[in-house]
Amino acid sequence: MTRQATTNKVSTKEEALKLLDQYDHFLFDCDGVIWLGPDKIAGASEFIELLKEKNKSYAFVTNNSSVSRETYLKKFEKLGFPDVNKDKIFPSCYAAALILQRDLKVPEGSKVWVLGDEGIEDELKEAGYVPLGGNDPALDDDWDPAHRLLQVDEGVKAVVIGSTKKLNYLRVATTLQYLLHNNRSIPFIGTNIDKTYPGPFGTVLPAGGSFVNYMSFTSSRDFIDVGKPSSLLLDSIIKHCQFDRSKTLMFGDTLYTDIKFGNDGKLGGEAGGSLLVLSGGTSQEELDALDNGDASLVPSYYVESVGKLVDLINN
Amino acid sequence: MTRQATTNKVSTKEEALKLLDQYDHFLFDCDGVIWLGPDKIAGASEFIELLKEKNKSYAFVTNNSSVSRETYLKKFEKLGFPDVNKDKIFPSCYAAALILQRDLKVPEGSKVWVLGDEGIEDELKEAGYVPLGGNDPALDDDWDPAHRLLQVDEGVKAVVIGSTKKLNYLRVATTLQYLLHNNRSIPFIGTNIDKTYPGPFGTVLPAGGSFVNYMSFTSSRDFIDVGKPSSLLLDSIIKHCQFDRSKTLMFGDTLYTDIKFGNDGKLGGEAGGSLLVLSGGTSQEELDALDNGDASLVPSYYVESVGKLVDLINN
Repeated sequence: MTRQATTNKVSTKEEALKLLDQYDHFLFDCDGVIWLGPDKIAGASEFIELLKEKNKSYAFVTNNSSVSRETYLKKFEKLGFPDVNKDKIFPSCYAAALILQRDLKVPEGSKVWVLGDEGIEDELKEAGYVPLGGNDPALDDDWDPAHRLLQVDEGVKAVVIGSTKKLNYLRVATTLQYLLHNNRSIPFIGTNIDKTYPGPFGTVLPAGGSFVNYMSFTSSRDFIDVGKPSSLLLDSIIKHCQFDRSKTLMFGDTLYTDIKFGNDGKLGGEAGGSLLVLSGGTSQEELDALDNGDASLVPSYYVESVGKLVDLINN
Repeated sequence: MTRQATTNKVSTKEEALKLLDQYDHFLFDCDGVIWLGPDKIAGASEFIELLKEKNKSYAFVTNNSSVSRETYLKKFEKLGFPDVNKDKIFPSCYAAALILQRDLKVPEGSKVWVLGDEGIEDELKEAGYVPLGGNDPALDDDWDPAHRLLQVDEGVKAVVIGSTKKLNYLRVATTLQYLLHNNRSIPFIGTNIDKTYPGPFGTVLPAGGSFVNYMSFTSSRDFIDVGKPSSLLLDSIIKHCQFDRSKTLMFGDTLYTDIKFGNDGKLGGEAGGSLLVLSGGTSQEELDALDNGDASLVPSYYVESVGKLVDLINN
């Protein structure tokens, strides 16, 4: 089976309307789909409005663990999206807290060591955990092998790792002690597997998955991935939002996280449940050049952007 | 073939003397073999004295890239080793400079981007290169995606990565730009593959190989390993020191770097040319438990320490 045979371009009003008929639940990646950095993608809030009018349900799922649901909610409000609330937002920092609670059964009140941004600390706190590490200013100290934080706190019951701009040797060294402690037995959660992301001024910058992989390699340990394309995350969302898997469509701009997430998760039943937008990290050329060796990366549909769907429907 | 059949314990005067008869050239790892941190291992300088008396040749090869040959020379002198000079010392920072020159033919005067300690910068300078990055205080600035150093300098012709305690996001992000530049075409040298090393106070600390692997993963690039067990390094030493490969014995305390270096390099001919000392990172238990799946990790000989060889010979 070739890609051409399995990816359908959505290019007519009928095709766009059929999509809205066929699915009841819509999952969206954020950056590259709903917004690009600080700016809303044209037509994105109108598309959500359309879903609302048709009594469809929807949720947002992002591998960015740097900020909490609370902060995302403010961004949605600021950009003028209708009817978004915390229950509809799944950043991977929240996924980490959810999976610690529900799947790993780490008791409330436990300490959790963090290498990552404040989103992780905020969500852990909201779930009743006590985050250590993270943005603790003591970790900005110059490297010192006698630093008190290198001594393991026995109360720590899990380690969560995501992206941080505050990377330094003391942070990775302290994190390593927890990962190795007690014969490498404390659960190790990684918020995503993204290596890089497109930064400003033409740069390509290290993303959360690069730090997760760093700590995994250095500690010789596997990790529990709670970001896309992890099935643990999808199961959690499906359950939390009471979505019917066979009636769910995942929108994303990245093949190996978003599209794989929908495909591996068997969304959409026979018709498939993954839709690539070209408004973010993947170009038409990359889609055309897609190697068919890995069917999990091949989207069921593609379209220029969510705004294009609105245009098709309204014309 | 089992490990027991291939690793010979050196435990008698006759066996120790036979070793000195059988080989003409002796290669030594430093930390765990010759010294432990700041302290000489008992009998180490006496063993070198013995080699000198018997007109044997010897050299030192270490995966530590943090300091230059000049600095190692001072340490050898301070600890009272006889007849050691710069031509006998091969830290992997020097190996990086050598291999840039001789194997990769990077022209003298070229700029080389460094993620690592001053040993790399010093050896690059001595080889006629212009190191950029490294300990540049501008790289200690707070993270700023508009930082001038994120703009690639087109004069940079290679990237060398080793251990650094000055790890921060700006350093890894700037290094990433060079690794990705020009379609990932600039040579990428890693000074070693060591994940961790035993630190003070019972800690296990991230080593140079952890940073090399980080940049390799994040840039989706392979690297040229110039540390042990790289054959590129051994070939370079054999040539530089005019050693006869079949008459050379490698002493080390680490199986996957030192012992593999000797075995993969076919040192010692039929008898093998790798000797494990138990005075460093590998214990008798770890030797006994050695999985024979990978024959390249099985030493030809083992002994408590180089000092034990002196004791055996003198008694």
